[in-house]
Amino acid sequence: MPGQRRIDELAAATGGRVIGDPSMLINGIASIEDAGEGDITFVSDKRHMKLIGSCRASALILSETEAPPKDGSQGFTLLLVKNPMLAAARILELFSPVEPPPPGIHPRAEVHPDAKLGAQVSIGALTIVEKGASIGERTVLMPGVYVGSRAEIGADSIIYSGVVIRERCKIGARAIIHCNAVIGSDGFGFTPDGSRSYKIPQNGIVRIEDDVEIGACTTIDRATIGETVIGSGTKIDNLVQIAHNVRIGAGSIIVAQVGIAGSATIGERVVIGGQSGINGHIKIGTGAQIGTRTGVIKSLDSGDAHLGFPSMPRGDWLRSQSIFAKLPELKKRLRELEERVKSIEGAKDN
Amino acid sequence: MPGQRRIDELAAATGGRVIGDPSMLINGIASIEDAGEGDITFVSDKRHMKLIGSCRASALILSETEAPPKDGSQGFTLLLVKNPMLAAARILELFSPVEPPPPGIHPRAEVHPDAKLGAQVSIGALTIVEKGASIGERTVLMPGVYVGSRAEIGADSIIYSGVVIRERCKIGARAIIHCNAVIGSDGFGFTPDGSRSYKIPQNGIVRIEDDVEIGACTTIDRATIGETVIGSGTKIDNLVQIAHNVRIGAGSIIVAQVGIAGSATIGERVVIGGQSGINGHIKIGTGAQIGTRTGVIKSLDSGDAHLGFPSMPRGDWLRSQSIFAKLPELKKRLRELEERVKSIEGAKDN
Amino acid sequence: MPGQRRIDELAAATGGRVIGDPSMLINGIASIEDAGEGDITFVSDKRHMKLIGSCRASALILSETEAPPKDGSQGFTLLLVKNPMLAAARILELFSPVEPPPPGIHPRAEVHPDAKLGAQVSIGALTIVEKGASIGERTVLMPGVYVGSRAEIGADSIIYSGVVIRERCKIGARAIIHCNAVIGSDGFGFTPDGSRSYKIPQNGIVRIEDDVEIGACTTIDRATIGETVIGSGTKIDNLVQIAHNVRIGAGSIIVAQVGIAGSATIGERVVIGGQSGINGHIKIGTGAQIGTRTGVIKSLDSGDAHLGFPSMPRGDWLRSQSIFAKLPELKKRLRELEERVKSIEGAKDN
Repeated sequence: MPGQRRIDELAAATGGRVIGDPSMLINGIASIEDAGEGDITFVSDKRHMKLIGSCRASALILSETEAPPKDGSQGFTLLLVKNPMLAAARILELFSPVEPPPPGIHPRAEVHPDAKLGAQVSIGALTIVEKGASIGERTVLMPGVYVGSRAEIGADSIIYSGVVIRERCKIGARAIIHCNAVIGSDGFGFTPDGSRSYKIPQNGIVRIEDDVEIGACTTIDRATIGETVIGSGTKIDNLVQIAHNVRIGAGSIIVAQVGIAGSATIGERVVIGGQSGINGHIKIGTGAQIGTRTGVIKSLDSGDAHLGFPSMPRGDWLRSQSIFAKLPELKKRLRELEERVKSIEGAKDN
Repeated sequence: MPGQRRIDELAAATGGRVIGDPSMLINGIASIEDAGEGDITFVSDKRHMKLIGSCRASALILSETEAPPKDGSQGFTLLLVKNPMLAAARILELFSPVEPPPPGIHPRAEVHPDAKLGAQVSIGALTIVEKGASIGERTVLMPGVYVGSRAEIGADSIIYSGVVIRERCKIGARAIIHCNAVIGSDGFGFTPDGSRSYKIPQNGIVRIEDDVEIGACTTIDRATIGETVIGSGTKIDNLVQIAHNVRIGAGSIIVAQVGIAGSATIGERVVIGGQSGINGHIKIGTGAQIGTRTGVIKSLDSGDAHLGFPSMPRGDWLRSQSIFAKLPELKKRLRELEERVKSIEGAKDN
Repeated sequence: MPGQRRIDELAAATGGRVIGDPSMLINGIASIEDAGEGDITFVSDKRHMKLIGSCRASALILSETEAPPKDGSQGFTLLLVKNPMLAAARILELFSPVEPPPPGIHPRAEVHPDAKLGAQVSIGALTIVEKGASIGERTVLMPGVYVGSRAEIGADSIIYSGVVIRERCKIGARAIIHCNAVIGSDGFGFTPDGSRSYKIPQNGIVRIEDDVEIGACTTIDRATIGETVIGSGTKIDNLVQIAHNVRIGAGSIIVAQVGIAGSATIGERVVIGGQSGINGHIKIGTGAQIGTRTGVIKSLDSGDAHLGFPSMPRGDWLRSQSIFAKLPELKKRLRELEERVKSIEGAKDN
């Protein structure tokens, strides 16, 4: 069967060891529910451990520090590893069905003669690379990408179809930018001119450091002056809005549909849950954890965990929110108490 | 006048009957406010019934079970039907100004020789169909679409400009996908690797069943393993985010800017109001009604109606919310009561 | 140095006057923090006035009505103007690095012979202009734009890459439409047909008046019948959803990720904060101010300022919200009061 791998190959790739037949042939990696004979599977969430009993996989990735599951583990060949999710990620790579496009420039790509192309770049059909742009070695521009004049993309990146990178923006190495994302659109800046909104030119750029991933239809606006910056290793999901002059530190995680307003500064390793918003001109400290659907209107310190709108420390918000759900009861208790006090007052007056 | 239709033609198309002259010529269908002489109109919302008096249309679609409006109906030729909105939809079809592009492959489309094209497909300029992709009969790919390798699109679909359908994704028959939507972008999956976020490859696909409509700039991520599924007849509005491994049942309605997190399961005929969010890994039962701007963090049963964040049964949230609006008053009553109790306690001590 | 300008040129362009050497050469305009020798800077926010002391700029834009800063102003050449932000905007224009593409039609643009092109239009590579479309004088269509049949764009507009303007939509003069925005996608309209959702054809259009700016990945749906209208001078940020038959008045500001549901009417000079939502079929009066993350479910009068969901007058919401944050304390006070009343009641009974 094409694509089969011996389980000891998987062990070598993941730094793990096999308990069982090292020559077992693995067809693929599948979820606990969907895995069939010949598959290897993994437990991404401990709550799924109970599904192991009915799982039809042939092999199981397990943490070397955890006991094998009580029921059914005898039936599995085991791959013991330090970090099961990381091992699963590496095995997913081995079984990836992705066929990267071969290096070369499609005859119907539109590459300006003054663009600088690194070795072994791959540029798809109907992709446009404007004057003075530079594309790093081995970088793939899928079909239908637009790279503006003097924009720079580092090595080993992949830019998917429909992405627009406007002029002069800089993107680091190993970037992954998903379909229809926009890098370097104008910031939303106007100033009143007596009768109307006068456009403030957005002369700056977006600078994206190395190892950043950006989701589909996410928009990152260029700075008014200077740079909008996305720090190295930061991962941004789909449909996120990042306004002009925002600076995001390294290693942060921004979940889908978040909006970050102009000139906000986000620290390193900050996590922002989906559909949350960050006000402009505030600072979010290193490692802050912002929950889902949260609206942060004031600066946060390092390590703060916030929820709600306006955001509050996580525990405070949960406490207030649990009382919110019981406001009708609280109101009733207050009314009863008013009656009782009135009755006491009445008695006293007699 | 080109495009005119006799009202008995409209009756035939809608299964209705005419009260008045069956040979009346109708120029078009218009809203109550905008209709002029020669137009037919309809009442989409009973609150608009009061506008009938000043309406200048020549004909009016009415439910056969409702009495004609008291004032003014004498002036109208009536088209009595079972379902006025459905009749209006069919008459809108008859008067549609849309000119579907003729079948054929534009000389500047970029169709791989190994793609499979059904009879009478229409493929626009600068549209790309990659190796091994298949396009069903009579399907229209407007100009500027991208269909990845081995992707499949069923018959009688229309894919609008700027849509990207990534490799191996499957789309059913009679699909309508609006401009700049993205089908099959990578799911947002990372696992900590000591110092950084390690990308979990997204090897799965998106599978969209028949009769699905997907809005502009909506993003549907491919599964990590297996499939992200959109059930038949489900309608999705603009700027919606659907994460990896989400499964949506048949006949659901997802309004604009909703976000559904990874591995959530949405039942059949669920309605999700605009700007709402659904947490990952939860289940929403058949026919649940989720309000606008609602954040659902726990699984819902069939038929549940929820609002708020974290979401609550609709009535509960409305009650709590109405008290929220009066919290200053509640607080004042509490303070007064404290004073009164203090005064009682003082009197008692004397 | 190329691009240098004498400060008296800047004064002429902004209607200001120089205090200091009128022949001073200015290299560029920069923020207070980033400005270096030879730069001119400005104070966009009074809170930044304290940074003036350590600023290394050579020149400073100041309001002619404000006193120069106490510390450090001696070191600057001053440009005194009526409106410093407006002056900064004009100086940003002078130093803009943007090189507008020259007029002309790229040989690989796809312009239908029946399209009407004004004088000096610029049409980029792989841009499509369909049959019967018209493009006004000096308008720029960047590479990779799609203009549908019979769509109209006024003079002096710029349409960025990836924008799709569907058939018959009308766009005024001096429009700026950012990358991957969609104008004229179908409205989200369905009517139950016994078993399923029947599509209501969206026969109308979008009409955008003059001087409108529309953000990246923003979607504006065409009307079911008639027009979705964006009034002149209105500015719309990224990732905004505007549903069918919405009408927005002149001079409004719609911040990122807002959603406006079908048939809502927004007055003139309304401001809607980021991530807010407006229900369908309601009216927002002239000059209303809607905060960030606000959900408006009822019509608002002119000048109303609202916050929250469901939205409330700004001050009311802030008061309720401040008590929400203290609900645990309120609950505790209620419990204590209950104890005290119980104790009084007990004493009385003895």
